[in-house]
Amino acid sequence: MNPSLPTSTDDVRDAGALRYGQAVALDGSVDLVHGGRLDEVTVCYESWGRLNAARDNAVLICHAISGDSHAASHDAEDTPGWWEHLIGPGKPVDTDRFFVICMNVLGGCRGTTGPNSVNPATGRAYGPDFPAITLEDIVDVQARALTKLGIDRLLAVVGGSLGGQQALVWGTRHGVRVRLVVPVATAPRLSTQALAFDVVGRNAIMSDPAFAGGRYMESGGTPATGLAIARMLGHITYLSREAMDQKFEADRLRPHDIVTEFEKRFSVGSYLAHQGNKFVERFDANSYVTLTLAMDMFDMGREAASLRRAFADSPCRWLLLSFSSDWLFPPRQSCEVVDALVAEGKRVTYCELPSPAGHDAFLLPDEVERYGSLIGARLEQELLGEVRTHGPTRCALSDMPTVRSDSSPTVFAKARRDYDRILELIPAGSRVLDLGCGEGELLSRLRSRGHEGLMGIDVAEARIIETARAGHEVIDHDMNEGLPQFADGAFDVVLLSQTLQALPNVSLVLSEMVRVGRRAVVSFPNFAFWKIREMLYKEGRSPKSVGEYGYEWHNTPNRRFPSIADFEDFCAKQGLVVHRAVHLDSEAGEEVAEDPNRNADLSIFVLSR
Amino acid sequence: MNPSLPTSTDDVRDAGALRYGQAVALDGSVDLVHGGRLDEVTVCYESWGRLNAARDNAVLICHAISGDSHAASHDAEDTPGWWEHLIGPGKPVDTDRFFVICMNVLGGCRGTTGPNSVNPATGRAYGPDFPAITLEDIVDVQARALTKLGIDRLLAVVGGSLGGQQALVWGTRHGVRVRLVVPVATAPRLSTQALAFDVVGRNAIMSDPAFAGGRYMESGGTPATGLAIARMLGHITYLSREAMDQKFEADRLRPHDIVTEFEKRFSVGSYLAHQGNKFVERFDANSYVTLTLAMDMFDMGREAASLRRAFADSPCRWLLLSFSSDWLFPPRQSCEVVDALVAEGKRVTYCELPSPAGHDAFLLPDEVERYGSLIGARLEQELLGEVRTHGPTRCALSDMPTVRSDSSPTVFAKARRDYDRILELIPAGSRVLDLGCGEGELLSRLRSRGHEGLMGIDVAEARIIETARAGHEVIDHDMNEGLPQFADGAFDVVLLSQTLQALPNVSLVLSEMVRVGRRAVVSFPNFAFWKIREMLYKEGRSPKSVGEYGYEWHNTPNRRFPSIADFEDFCAKQGLVVHRAVHLDSEAGEEVAEDPNRNADLSIFVLSR
Repeated sequence: MNPSLPTSTDDVRDAGALRYGQAVALDGSVDLVHGGRLDEVTVCYESWGRLNAARDNAVLICHAISGDSHAASHDAEDTPGWWEHLIGPGKPVDTDRFFVICMNVLGGCRGTTGPNSVNPATGRAYGPDFPAITLEDIVDVQARALTKLGIDRLLAVVGGSLGGQQALVWGTRHGVRVRLVVPVATAPRLSTQALAFDVVGRNAIMSDPAFAGGRYMESGGTPATGLAIARMLGHITYLSREAMDQKFEADRLRPHDIVTEFEKRFSVGSYLAHQGNKFVERFDANSYVTLTLAMDMFDMGREAASLRRAFADSPCRWLLLSFSSDWLFPPRQSCEVVDALVAEGKRVTYCELPSPAGHDAFLLPDEVERYGSLIGARLEQELLGEVRTHGPTRCALSDMPTVRSDSSPTVFAKARRDYDRILELIPAGSRVLDLGCGEGELLSRLRSRGHEGLMGIDVAEARIIETARAGHEVIDHDMNEGLPQFADGAFDVVLLSQTLQALPNVSLVLSEMVRVGRRAVVSFPNFAFWKIREMLYKEGRSPKSVGEYGYEWHNTPNRRFPSIADFEDFCAKQGLVVHRAVHLDSEAGEEVAEDPNRNADLSIFVLSR
Repeated sequence: MNPSLPTSTDDVRDAGALRYGQAVALDGSVDLVHGGRLDEVTVCYESWGRLNAARDNAVLICHAISGDSHAASHDAEDTPGWWEHLIGPGKPVDTDRFFVICMNVLGGCRGTTGPNSVNPATGRAYGPDFPAITLEDIVDVQARALTKLGIDRLLAVVGGSLGGQQALVWGTRHGVRVRLVVPVATAPRLSTQALAFDVVGRNAIMSDPAFAGGRYMESGGTPATGLAIARMLGHITYLSREAMDQKFEADRLRPHDIVTEFEKRFSVGSYLAHQGNKFVERFDANSYVTLTLAMDMFDMGREAASLRRAFADSPCRWLLLSFSSDWLFPPRQSCEVVDALVAEGKRVTYCELPSPAGHDAFLLPDEVERYGSLIGARLEQELLGEVRTHGPTRCALSDMPTVRSDSSPTVFAKARRDYDRILELIPAGSRVLDLGCGEGELLSRLRSRGHEGLMGIDVAEARIIETARAGHEVIDHDMNEGLPQFADGAFDVVLLSQTLQALPNVSLVLSEMVRVGRRAVVSFPNFAFWKIREMLYKEGRSPKSVGEYGYEWHNTPNRRFPSIADFEDFCAKQGLVVHRAVHLDSEAGEEVAEDPNRNADLSIFVLSR
């Protein structure tokens, strides 16, 4: 790793803090969503790379609450930006190929109009008179600034945290101007807990006597104590409990000897005091109040139905990312957005990245390494309209250890003898949902046959990323929880290829398949195949199916051992209609007609309800 | 439920806030652990019930940071206490049978000597000159007060949160005076995250200009803002995210119209403001600083080895309880204590109670209903030296739905045909660890045969509670994670009765069994039993073992289907020595000598490494 690059979020946070870059003044006044007007608005921004002739390679980066436009360095002498590992020449958001722009947000204190800008009506800083703004206002100002800059269409909007909320607004409010939306580590509204932390932070600021009702600038003071306490609180929420222990436990009673009025008895205390004090030097209290309130009031809907309405008209393609240990914007909240998009039939991909780092994970080099390639691949796909086809030169990600793999293991990855027959059973042009899609091989074969409306589901990060990099939509979801995000009949075909035998919740998954798909296609190894019968009957050995290499009774991911007869009984009892059943002797490569329950080692059923 | 009883933690928190009860002055001064001395110490307390003639029925209740001695009401006219559902006539801590006492803590502000007590040296309140105290000092003062009251021995010490920390200190520092220690929802040291919240809270208090270096009493003021902010923070940490959403989401933008200087834009904000303001009326800022510091400095050890040393000499019996959604004192931290006690061979029982309520769960009536019976049973057992024997009239708890049952399901609960033979294979007097102990039937049979040093492991709350109520030590632990808390050879025999077939991690569990036990005894259904063979061979049906009532291939908790031959191979490969193998035809009730892999439906192996 380049040692000059930031290696922790603390470095990142302060990177290039005072670099404002370029500015653009909007024409005319800005009417705010909740009433109020700003007569003059200037937007400060930075940019990287060049807009191409078609003007279709612009990527907007949206920053988090205490971030700024300095997302990346501009040259070797420049200070690193807060997303340095994501953005730059040859990096995932490749500034050799894309025109990248990042604007300081409205209401902030980094150059774009905010509470410490001059109010043209009075000639003095707005201070507490700066009107209440919303995420919609922030994004509308960005949209107008881009128009003024001659950028009508964005290839993508990418942002994390508050930046992710901006991306959500872009994709719904200005969706016609954006092709790809990438909200990272964000939520359609804050949890009550996150809201509560903001409330306490604002209480600390606004009850600091130096706040003076927000008019501290007039006296030359600043509510340093309150703002520092709000920032300390923020820092606690940015880290996971695990990450905090890892960072401070060994030296609990050995604080850094910093200059501060705050308690520095514990190492974590000296860290928080340092962060609080530093923040006061570079951030404005009225801006913090303004932006946290915008965040707190942001609400795309609490119920599934209202969230669906919010996303119903979005024409964009979506890519959402969350982090397993993020408790400020927990993965469940990204899922709510994904579920709404899925329910509305949008093109959406989602991955929950396993990480111990908490909310800050989205800024960390190691995590960017992992998810950056996915963002980069999607940007390329959108720019070129091309998708990578599966081939032998697959990226190293496929060798990464999988997480939560127990929920959907597949022991047949190298022996997909059923694929050809499955493909024959799927009518041309069908929209297909592949449950446990692995690395997307079957989806790629369907796509090369001309299918559209394809989607995969899996639970392992590496498989999801690989499927997504191949250009497919894929959702991080455990099918054993059902498929509630999918409407009845959302797909022509729902596939379950050689995963039945590893499912905890067989009955739920099957009933969901025939609800969501007009047809369900299920393939599984027949455990009453004569070789397996003889294994048990003659040798007295635990049944082991064909292709189950390297596993024994005690470590196979398989936990169900149905025969064809068992599965037929199950279908009858569950009221599933069997339209076709294809039974194979996969070693011989032949279809089995006679006594398949004895002679077939693999079966494919086509079902409906 | 009696409607006059408190039904939420908010009611409980303020219950009887101003009732101090009796007082006892200690003889002589108190030397503090970290230096410093208190020349005069008075302890205020309340008590319920009567000390018996043997003076062996005293139960000490320890309160949390903002609690007090009013743990329960004294009569029908009295205000309810904070543990009203646990303590009282006929309740789990039955004041008809036990003498119950609860003391206000040293350093607090509820009557026992603390910062707002008069310093005899100056004639004025201590204020900020009150010395730094530790949990050890708090407990030492309780111990001296009890001595003065003529109570040399405690039947039990029971406490939650800060009260649980007091229980931990009692069991280690004054263990010879206590028979049973019950730490609830607590930790051997705070997590860095919990510590960080305390630090921010203290910063808010101490940077409030009204704090005046702690001398606010001299000017008649109080750091109301800082103390309220600290309390708001506390309240966020007492609830789980889920509980907070449930409480405030529907009315997010409809705050209560309370009188407060704090923000009341959101319902959660008005709640926090109300809690903050109320707290200022009843709590002293210097006490809050004193007690949070005592909590933050409390440290029984970070590493397993130091924790073991802390508990090595404790002669007590232990019962620990935690709550699944408690993120302030997460279950993992209770496990650390349990692991240390187990490693030191102590008598300990532990249950993680599934609850969505967060840290506050320990105060909630519904949760008290669930864990109270366990505390009550243990108190009875300690008082009478008797244990309930298993009989047909089992409590309704056994019908409760189990949680995490997937990790260790048992389909054979009603068909334990192997018990008699297993008992014959266990040498008289052996110390036995029963993995997946169910409701403790086998442990009870061993006990009635005179065995001591028995222990069970399970993962389902209902089974753990039932086993513990039967008087056994039982640990809430998933054996699939191994048995790292147990020393090599800690038991003579480690049992795994008809659970092998449901284990994800067969190899790890078996290797741990022969490490922890001098012998491992494993029973399992033989899936090469001739009836099962025929089921597959002749009928082409998924194998289903004897006794597997009500399950089909698609919903059985079984996931492994070993034959005797398979298991023998496995033992050979893993280097496990087979000392005995007993093969049964359990329907005939006979031992099988000839071709057991065909003729036995159940086998028992005695193994070692």
